[in-house]
Amino acid sequence: MTISTPKNIFSNIPTELPEEFFETLLQQDNIRIERIISKGHHNAANDWYDQVQDEWIVLLQGQAKLEFYEPASIQLLNSGDYLLIPAHIKHRVAWTLENSETIWLAIHIFPNAGNEG
Amino acid sequence: MTISTPKNIFSNIPTELPEEFFETLLQQDNIRIERIISKGHHNAANDWYDQVQDEWIVLLQGQAKLEFYEPASIQLLNSGDYLLIPAHIKHRVAWTLENSETIWLAIHIFPNAGNEG
Repeated sequence: MTISTPKNIFSNIPTELPEEFFETLLQQDNIRIERIISKGHHNAANDWYDQVQDEWIVLLQGQAKLEFYEPASIQLLNSGDYLLIPAHIKHRVAWTLENSETIWLAIHIFPNAGNEG
Repeated sequence: MTISTPKNIFSNIPTELPEEFFETLLQQDNIRIERIISKGHHNAANDWYDQVQDEWIVLLQGQAKLEFYEPASIQLLNSGDYLLIPAHIKHRVAWTLENSETIWLAIHIFPNAGNEG
């Protein structure tokens, strides 16, 4: 088996970002590793993510505000900040830096088959 | 459910690092997210990792050389570089920066029960 050459998570940023940019870096049975690039993007006012999977995120560059529905709170994230968003915890991206790219690494951990919550 | 406060992956670095430092950030059914901090640490000359799990790594700070057994190769990793080390691909850390900390994020993806390769 050949080892693939490393890629760089801070490179290959699209020059234009009309939408938030989602890129799957690894897809396995019940895990997806994803890079997300934001530049001023945020969810609409009442647009909440409500996911079946746990999502562990680390902000690698930039700055963002993550809003939680219940209990209501807003969390500022700086470079290096990480946290787990458990399944079905409603959340939205409330704000990201407008003048430079914010880079997130997200690890989506899906329930095993037959084990979905 | 309460959302935990974010922690920072570049913070809480031990002041002394007599050994390489391993810290589990998240442990789920078949996934472990781990922070590794190296400072000049490397595997002994013939000390190879041969793991049952896939390991996806991203180097977040510092610099390291990763050596593969077959085909023999050495890969220099800089900040932001990521790659997948498939299960049973023998590898070792051949070198890390001596004067400052190298921080790795490792996602260990274990085979599902009954599905081990």
